[in-house]
Amino acid sequence: MVAYGGKRKISESTIRRLSIYYRVLSILEKENYETVSSKELARREKLTPAQVRKDLSFFGSFGTRGLGYPVSELKDRIAQILGLNKIWNVALIGVGNIGSALVGYKEFQRQNFNIKVIFDNDQRKIGSNHKGIKVSDIKNLESDLKANNIEIVIVAVPATVAQYIVDDVVKAGIKGILNFAPVNLKVPGDVFLRNENMSMELEYLSFALRNFMNPSEMDEKGIS
Amino acid sequence: MVAYGGKRKISESTIRRLSIYYRVLSILEKENYETVSSKELARREKLTPAQVRKDLSFFGSFGTRGLGYPVSELKDRIAQILGLNKIWNVALIGVGNIGSALVGYKEFQRQNFNIKVIFDNDQRKIGSNHKGIKVSDIKNLESDLKANNIEIVIVAVPATVAQYIVDDVVKAGIKGILNFAPVNLKVPGDVFLRNENMSMELEYLSFALRNFMNPSEMDEKGIS
Repeated sequence: MVAYGGKRKISESTIRRLSIYYRVLSILEKENYETVSSKELARREKLTPAQVRKDLSFFGSFGTRGLGYPVSELKDRIAQILGLNKIWNVALIGVGNIGSALVGYKEFQRQNFNIKVIFDNDQRKIGSNHKGIKVSDIKNLESDLKANNIEIVIVAVPATVAQYIVDDVVKAGIKGILNFAPVNLKVPGDVFLRNENMSMELEYLSFALRNFMNPSEMDEKGIS
Repeated sequence: MVAYGGKRKISESTIRRLSIYYRVLSILEKENYETVSSKELARREKLTPAQVRKDLSFFGSFGTRGLGYPVSELKDRIAQILGLNKIWNVALIGVGNIGSALVGYKEFQRQNFNIKVIFDNDQRKIGSNHKGIKVSDIKNLESDLKANNIEIVIVAVPATVAQYIVDDVVKAGIKGILNFAPVNLKVPGDVFLRNENMSMELEYLSFALRNFMNPSEMDEKGIS
């Protein structure tokens, strides 16, 4: 749980759902909807209307009974809460298998995460161009992070070297790190670290397929 | 929430935490630990010991007061619950930016998700070899899915065509789909669909960096 505004607490799952509401609201805005009910938001995301109302109530009163939520206003408010109303300067370390894919990942750009610098230690890659960004030598990590005002670093290096790399990133003063290496990393108490593991969602599917015949059965028993 | 064994309910966050416990237990097993306390499991994952005990209590009694949980036994039990104690036959559709990275993603293999077939519609890619797997023509989707006993399909195609592709996957009888396209897909009530969006974790970081000076401040205020 995260205290918000010193009063209420926000769970990690709520933050995830905010990301999802933001996406749905962006789609609704494109479809020219002016308002949306908690019922409709819930239906699109397979949540309950009560859950939606509870989540959104964290951030002040929005909905008008009978009218629903104003789409653009709610979207902007959530963007503000998630910190998506500014451009974040991001660096990527490692242009291997996953790293190369991330450089071209359009969702980052769309959500205002701007990959400005790429680092690698492979001499064959240094100086090469990835989607318009020249690969820098990892030796220049600290100075290049500073020169580009980097705020968030994505680490996509082999598990065996990830801790060394992250230590250097921390030393350079970075407070937000997204790690793709399948390893538990240690960071000091003043650094936010998140781990991305793409097999987690597959594990959700294997859990579901193993335990249930079909999703509606889960629904009946009360999936949230 | 998901009913488990007809009695208790398991939330989506619990399933995610099970995936995480599984990883920590695998590490502990490699480090030759025989038992682990809820306190130690909690410390490694920044949870509370009470949360860990609550999660694990869903699956019968494991811990012995004063001795903790037996590492290998608990790991095997969680593998069984998550359905990781069998090899899942997986197909990948789309070997673009993200798809190519997924073929080489070692975590899938490690968790028993075996990519057996790859499909694309690009004539230049069809017949080519990706990490030992020949790319099949999407035209042969239904027959190749059946011939390979595919149970889960990963969709990594452009957002504009994702729904058409998923419709064909559903028609072929697949009940588990992991989608990487940034679009809301519709599937019938008897199909499990999960969406992977790699910018979600970055949004958690931007939320944290925007709202908090440092993680220990979040801890004091009660991050879970």
